[in-house]
Amino acid sequence: MPIYNAPLADMKFILNDVFKAEQFWQANENLAHVDAATAEAILEEMAKFAQNVTLPINRTGDEEGATYNNGAVTTPAGFKEAFKQYAEGGWIGLGADEEWGGQGMPKMLTVLADEMLFATNPSFMLYPLLSVGAGMALNSYASQEQKETYLPKIYSGEWSGTMCLTEPHAGTDLGIIKTKAERNEDGTYNITGTKIFITGGDHDLAENIIHLVLAKTPDAPAGSRGISLFIVPKFIVNTDGSLGERNTAGPGSIEHKMGIKASATCVMNFDAAKGYLVGNENEGLAAMFVMMNYERLSMGIQGLGASEYAYQNAAQYATDRLQGRSATGAKSPQKPADSILVHGDVRRMLLNVRANNEASRAFAVYVGQQLDITKFSTDAEAVQKANNRVALLTPIAKAYLTDTAFQATLDAQMVFGGHGYIREWGMEQCIRDLRIAQIYEGTNGVQSQDLIGRKTIKCNGEYIAEYIEEIRDFANDLDSDLNYIKDATLDAATELEVITQTVLERAKENPDYANAAAVDYLHAVGLLSFSYMFAKIAKAANAKSGEFYQNKLSLVNYFIQRILPDLNTRIARIKVTSDTVMSFSEDYFTNQS
Amino acid sequence: MPIYNAPLADMKFILNDVFKAEQFWQANENLAHVDAATAEAILEEMAKFAQNVTLPINRTGDEEGATYNNGAVTTPAGFKEAFKQYAEGGWIGLGADEEWGGQGMPKMLTVLADEMLFATNPSFMLYPLLSVGAGMALNSYASQEQKETYLPKIYSGEWSGTMCLTEPHAGTDLGIIKTKAERNEDGTYNITGTKIFITGGDHDLAENIIHLVLAKTPDAPAGSRGISLFIVPKFIVNTDGSLGERNTAGPGSIEHKMGIKASATCVMNFDAAKGYLVGNENEGLAAMFVMMNYERLSMGIQGLGASEYAYQNAAQYATDRLQGRSATGAKSPQKPADSILVHGDVRRMLLNVRANNEASRAFAVYVGQQLDITKFSTDAEAVQKANNRVALLTPIAKAYLTDTAFQATLDAQMVFGGHGYIREWGMEQCIRDLRIAQIYEGTNGVQSQDLIGRKTIKCNGEYIAEYIEEIRDFANDLDSDLNYIKDATLDAATELEVITQTVLERAKENPDYANAAAVDYLHAVGLLSFSYMFAKIAKAANAKSGEFYQNKLSLVNYFIQRILPDLNTRIARIKVTSDTVMSFSEDYFTNQS
Repeated sequence: MPIYNAPLADMKFILNDVFKAEQFWQANENLAHVDAATAEAILEEMAKFAQNVTLPINRTGDEEGATYNNGAVTTPAGFKEAFKQYAEGGWIGLGADEEWGGQGMPKMLTVLADEMLFATNPSFMLYPLLSVGAGMALNSYASQEQKETYLPKIYSGEWSGTMCLTEPHAGTDLGIIKTKAERNEDGTYNITGTKIFITGGDHDLAENIIHLVLAKTPDAPAGSRGISLFIVPKFIVNTDGSLGERNTAGPGSIEHKMGIKASATCVMNFDAAKGYLVGNENEGLAAMFVMMNYERLSMGIQGLGASEYAYQNAAQYATDRLQGRSATGAKSPQKPADSILVHGDVRRMLLNVRANNEASRAFAVYVGQQLDITKFSTDAEAVQKANNRVALLTPIAKAYLTDTAFQATLDAQMVFGGHGYIREWGMEQCIRDLRIAQIYEGTNGVQSQDLIGRKTIKCNGEYIAEYIEEIRDFANDLDSDLNYIKDATLDAATELEVITQTVLERAKENPDYANAAAVDYLHAVGLLSFSYMFAKIAKAANAKSGEFYQNKLSLVNYFIQRILPDLNTRIARIKVTSDTVMSFSEDYFTNQS
Repeated sequence: MPIYNAPLADMKFILNDVFKAEQFWQANENLAHVDAATAEAILEEMAKFAQNVTLPINRTGDEEGATYNNGAVTTPAGFKEAFKQYAEGGWIGLGADEEWGGQGMPKMLTVLADEMLFATNPSFMLYPLLSVGAGMALNSYASQEQKETYLPKIYSGEWSGTMCLTEPHAGTDLGIIKTKAERNEDGTYNITGTKIFITGGDHDLAENIIHLVLAKTPDAPAGSRGISLFIVPKFIVNTDGSLGERNTAGPGSIEHKMGIKASATCVMNFDAAKGYLVGNENEGLAAMFVMMNYERLSMGIQGLGASEYAYQNAAQYATDRLQGRSATGAKSPQKPADSILVHGDVRRMLLNVRANNEASRAFAVYVGQQLDITKFSTDAEAVQKANNRVALLTPIAKAYLTDTAFQATLDAQMVFGGHGYIREWGMEQCIRDLRIAQIYEGTNGVQSQDLIGRKTIKCNGEYIAEYIEEIRDFANDLDSDLNYIKDATLDAATELEVITQTVLERAKENPDYANAAAVDYLHAVGLLSFSYMFAKIAKAANAKSGEFYQNKLSLVNYFIQRILPDLNTRIARIKVTSDTVMSFSEDYFTNQS
């Protein structure tokens, strides 16, 4: 039976010592209602929920799966009760505005709450996650009346939300979607089309489901400039807020997937379904991207949660498993064999995972803080800077955190040997459930294109230059007894600065260049980011004494020595011209002879 | 529906052009019965079998799985018929001695036949694979009478074989197994104990199952020097060769696993089961390692097969999927979007997979050739050299080929975007089925320990020095128009030579060092090996003209530019001291605060 103990000590260390969150909150009038004690109480409550409610239905949810029958989806046993409890605890609106029934908590805190839920039950977590994302999009772009109608119900968990983008022929390339929106005389629209891969497209957890649907009006411009966003409720909402007739929108089937089997991934059919325009016609993509960017950071948290869960189970297994003897002589001579923790290779795997977790957690809180600045700060310059930083780091949060987490869960599975492959130990489900995080909400390849293209080349490297400047300032300020991380971080910053220049020049000369270099560039920025996070961790740990903090510094050293060297390989690959991939004819790929 | 077309053109290129197999066979009197035409005919027949028989039952086998009821295992629909057809085609004995009903084909050829079966149905392939392995162990260590009793039946497929090593508390550390063997007055033994993870421990494909079981006699020395090997048939074989009573050996249950669900992984209970000693008491491990080493190369082939299958499906998907536009302007302006092959990142993923396949295939044939020398050559010095090479490269074949193949299948899955996560496209099954290859027959971590320990430090680097010498001689001989691969290979050889010295020195100073460095060292030797294989491919391709050969050279270039740079990272990590991992207390790993 897999275990999970919320890493509260580390979460508190990150919030209190590394980011001095209380000071940050108290210095901002819009966040002054949050203090460290409140934050810790929230984390402790969520820890109980994750350990006691969502963890026990993780494996059973995978075994049973969401099921589709006669046009309706049923979630696995226990999901309904867990969702009710989650909603009643006010968790759905934890980060939402108090005006709409939320708790107004900062993102710095909610990322940590989300981590626990993703660690213990990613399938479950996706249901409220989509609600929150839909709420954010509506909060930003919907009319006052729409907000009043939908937001309180979404945050109370009475209703839930979805995002309906992908169509069978159109995933990344939303410009070619075919779903039609025809305006009725009363101002509503008839929405007709098929959407696929719709998470939570149907289920039995809430009374109503509010679909946010991308569609094209008949006279819309071609491509992504002609996409509008519509609210399409499962049940039409009467003017008094009660539920009216069933809309002609519903699931046609659910997908059979590698993992997240308890999360219903629906094919959705819209058959002249009644829809309500959000914002203006042809401006739907911007609204959807509010939701999408929120989900993208969340996917990184999904990675972190899975990696923490994998770590805890692998570390426990390694401690309990007796096999072989230490190379320096038996460590437990009274036992038939030593624990496998005596083997350097087992430690290497566990430390890979743990280093990933601690850096990812710091990074999630860091990006959360930047988001909080964009939302709560009254300093326009700070907001602008934070907006740039969020733009730059959203693809890192989504893609780098899930790439490294996936590798981490593989390492954790390997610690178990053959037992890692067996269902009862939970590792194989963890991996299957996590794999989707690298794929959905824009594949990690697409994230990399976003980073190197829109976030770097398009602004002529301005965002990354600002980030590097911040990192340099921080590293230069470190005490000399932290030279090992200081030097490593400064070196990495310089490497990134130089290679970014190469990227900018090459991209000008050759339009194909950036696409082929993108993933390695993303990993290079990711490694720099982890270096920066470990520099922050090192500074905080160095200011304290005791084993807990000493171990943090040892882990920083592990990162520099054994993980950061991958930067060399990434830089070498970014330097390669795109001829290496573009010189092959298209036929080559399917032609064997 | 997933596709598979056996890569016959590439297989023939590797055999005929790269390794000049016919010349090699004809120069050896024990292999003079094999010529290129025979080899090609065999490959073409196997291609039909793989495409028409095993591919169609791959997905259904996964859906249905092997099932356990009332002490017996049933294989999924179609497996019985396929096994019968496979056996009747003489495939089980393809590489076995003609004396026992085999076809006496060289390993250089059988690895390619195995690749096709692993590509199309790894679960199926494991049944005959274990038979062949058991046959090899018996052929090497059993008495003449035992050989006569068991080998012809195993190669005809009437009976099958297993290897029973692992126990619940003892996997890698076989020295602590508990299964007992008590000698009866008639010279047979009573075998009592529980074995787990027994592939094909029970099934309905053959009339009898010959278990090769490791057990300890009551007075056996402690540890791995006190292990004996026994034949324990499911049904006792009468003196006339007919089947007698059911032995007290059978499955207690089967495991529920991440993948290879159609392959029955059994818990086996031996309850004073009748067993027959193979060879001498306490010398069982050597016999089992004959089988184990064979399986280890096979696991590498499993990786190659999966990676080839993944490649073909991903390349086809990429060709068919229209999404986005080329950065240099629409390539298919008449269509709503270009094929995703216009994107450098998609090509990067596909080329990673294809480069892996071509290098892995060459490497499998190369190791096969070395095994053929050990078996068929009459030149004692050549045999000795080949034995050393096989010892060195078995862990590379097992671990490096499965590590790179697993990454390759992940790349291939990513090409599909969300569709890669859906069962119907076959990619997710491919990944689940392949993952076990990194774990079983000794985890890849254990393979790495074998390479750096027994195969390198123990012989003071002699094996790797001989290998590097061969590689240098070959590279130095290349024409100057192949300088790009020549220089890269010579550089890699020097890097390995230098770092091996570091390893030897460090290992002397610190017994913990090697364990922590092992996996990176294995990957470094793997990268050198792929470099060597691409040097061989380049030489053969350069001697020909035409697009097929030109593309080989472009792929060589791709490897050097975009894959080989990982050697830098590996070397940097091998240099790191083991303090980075050993300095943490054992408590640290499970302690959060």
